[in-house]
Amino acid sequence: MITLLTDFGLEDPFVGIMKGVIAGIAPGIAVVDLTHNVAAFQIEQGAFLLEQSWRYFPKGTIHVAVVDPGVGSERRPILVESSGHHFIGPDNGIFRYILADEKARVRHLDQPRYWLPSPSHTFHGRDIFAPCAAHLAAGVKPSRLGTRISDALCPPVAVPAESNGTWLGAVLHIDRFGNLITNFRASDFSDFTVTAGKHKIARIASTYAHCAPGELTLIAGSSGFYEISVRNGSAAAITGLKAGAPLQLKPGPRIPSSRSKPSPSRPA
Amino acid sequence: MITLLTDFGLEDPFVGIMKGVIAGIAPGIAVVDLTHNVAAFQIEQGAFLLEQSWRYFPKGTIHVAVVDPGVGSERRPILVESSGHHFIGPDNGIFRYILADEKARVRHLDQPRYWLPSPSHTFHGRDIFAPCAAHLAAGVKPSRLGTRISDALCPPVAVPAESNGTWLGAVLHIDRFGNLITNFRASDFSDFTVTAGKHKIARIASTYAHCAPGELTLIAGSSGFYEISVRNGSAAAITGLKAGAPLQLKPGPRIPSSRSKPSPSRPA
Amino acid sequence: MITLLTDFGLEDPFVGIMKGVIAGIAPGIAVVDLTHNVAAFQIEQGAFLLEQSWRYFPKGTIHVAVVDPGVGSERRPILVESSGHHFIGPDNGIFRYILADEKARVRHLDQPRYWLPSPSHTFHGRDIFAPCAAHLAAGVKPSRLGTRISDALCPPVAVPAESNGTWLGAVLHIDRFGNLITNFRASDFSDFTVTAGKHKIARIASTYAHCAPGELTLIAGSSGFYEISVRNGSAAAITGLKAGAPLQLKPGPRIPSSRSKPSPSRPA
Repeated sequence: MITLLTDFGLEDPFVGIMKGVIAGIAPGIAVVDLTHNVAAFQIEQGAFLLEQSWRYFPKGTIHVAVVDPGVGSERRPILVESSGHHFIGPDNGIFRYILADEKARVRHLDQPRYWLPSPSHTFHGRDIFAPCAAHLAAGVKPSRLGTRISDALCPPVAVPAESNGTWLGAVLHIDRFGNLITNFRASDFSDFTVTAGKHKIARIASTYAHCAPGELTLIAGSSGFYEISVRNGSAAAITGLKAGAPLQLKPGPRIPSSRSKPSPSRPA
Repeated sequence: MITLLTDFGLEDPFVGIMKGVIAGIAPGIAVVDLTHNVAAFQIEQGAFLLEQSWRYFPKGTIHVAVVDPGVGSERRPILVESSGHHFIGPDNGIFRYILADEKARVRHLDQPRYWLPSPSHTFHGRDIFAPCAAHLAAGVKPSRLGTRISDALCPPVAVPAESNGTWLGAVLHIDRFGNLITNFRASDFSDFTVTAGKHKIARIASTYAHCAPGELTLIAGSSGFYEISVRNGSAAAITGLKAGAPLQLKPGPRIPSSRSKPSPSRPA
Repeated sequence: MITLLTDFGLEDPFVGIMKGVIAGIAPGIAVVDLTHNVAAFQIEQGAFLLEQSWRYFPKGTIHVAVVDPGVGSERRPILVESSGHHFIGPDNGIFRYILADEKARVRHLDQPRYWLPSPSHTFHGRDIFAPCAAHLAAGVKPSRLGTRISDALCPPVAVPAESNGTWLGAVLHIDRFGNLITNFRASDFSDFTVTAGKHKIARIASTYAHCAPGELTLIAGSSGFYEISVRNGSAAAITGLKAGAPLQLKPGPRIPSSRSKPSPSRPA
């Protein structure tokens, strides 16, 4: 099984073309779309959404992630093996969460025989990533697809930092309902107030339905992080905040321990 | 085969994650998207779009429908069996058209062994509905997934009402072309005028191409209902009407008889 | 394998319904979406996007393309066989690139036994095109689906025209990144300046990453045509140009020879 996550959108046939290439090399392989609406060029957002998703797929799944402003330049195409899953995409930080696992192994996809002939400089999803994923799915061994490397790009993941008793965090992502996904891990904080722009949020609820109408509320979301939500409304519209916006949390937190327990996502 | 209809949108990987969960439980099962762009929290719209769709799938298909503002609250997850199809989703009226069939049987999905462990309070699509659908597809009997109930929520479907010779109806849905789908059933009315906001529409055409350019026209649409359309244009833009807007139809209608003949949809 | 390209959008369940119809006739057949976001009624755009895509699929693939403002009128449903692929859709020019190959063979899909019973006047995707594609996939011979014809609609494809040493071209398409896809074939021109609205573009780069930030640049795109691009930005937003906008190219072109070498797309 192959999954696809890109910033290609659905207006163009880019994604369909990748599926055609895969079908030509590995007929019958199931291909699942994670999302193709990562904001154009937003590697960090793509990395987060991939991290939210991959664990829910069976072992052996090949995840192709293409948010690739550097396509055609010197940045390398890579294959990462971790936790029984495979990840294929550009070496630009899209796999920062995956690479935080020290057991992850990385290969440079440097064997053009597994690419389409005469690859373009602008669409490696079609010409390199999809064909390599399909050959892998069809049984080609990782060692034949590329050479081991140990210097893949792994920018740090933004975790909350403590300063004078206040934790400084950020909005990681805004979902389609306007929920603001924070980087405050639900297992790390239990009694606190969050300041988001001009808004102070003290209410914590267990479900959307338990929120008071119109009131900004914190919920331990399905991502494992606290979300700022409004019942049947959009917290993003009310606060005007965007992904990346700073947040402040105080007081009474336990010490954040990102590896203290297994959880669906894992900022290192 | 499993179909998915949600208000999750395609910006987030919610839908892809559900497919990952399904693949882990029922490998090889085909999953088809009906739509994921039901307006957020609009149960009634979701119910209508599901009703437009399910009959076109083979018997035995499992339809998962998740428009679920009450996720995590006391509202029950349910399984409905009707006409040889299965329906899985929240007990909130999303299945109002299906439940109008007196032979429909409903079960409360109350067996956590068929859910993901430790379900979240905010994403039952991933944690309850997708796993139950996958177990059903994999051969688990409905009787093992949950207990029979007879009090599932079944709000009435809006059918036109007669008042002094005028039938009062509504816009059920606006499609991507801006056609206004009414709840005037094509088999019930044949010679009439419709008033939509400030517009009076008397023209009835058999195809879009037979409409005069720029003129609001009534067409017996593929849904079995009359649609207000404009050739190569958007009736929604011209009239400014939204889903739910009231419509008036007069005169000369035959008596609406929603069960008088089999038809692709069936407001009860 | 069947591909789908339409202007149906993803807000409605139209596409899902077509997949249901296909599954009922040809169970197990894989269906891949090319795009459903062709601008409503824009046959020319649909034709171009199909042309960009079909070659990347295995021989034997059936491509269903429905951009069909004349649905329900006298325009014929057709099947085109070319280069080992099949194409099904309306006879309205959507297959203009395919039909430019003189060896293409066309049939009028005039056998209602392979349609859904009582086809609507507004949704032939569901009632005629999907069923015919599914029957073809299930093994029905083209000769049984319809009668050979030789007068299918084949409007000319816009190729650049020379006038006093200047080549007059056009924007064929704008992709999701705001790149302006021109109809100047990369293999035909190598040293030139393009005028696009108020902008004169002389810079040619091999990859997006080699563009100077903020500067309009020409790149030989993955489509085989030059694209006007801006690094990490939208050339469409900067120039304000739309699909169809005129472009001027001068001087020093080689003579455009659209058949001089095999290439991924082929305006005749």
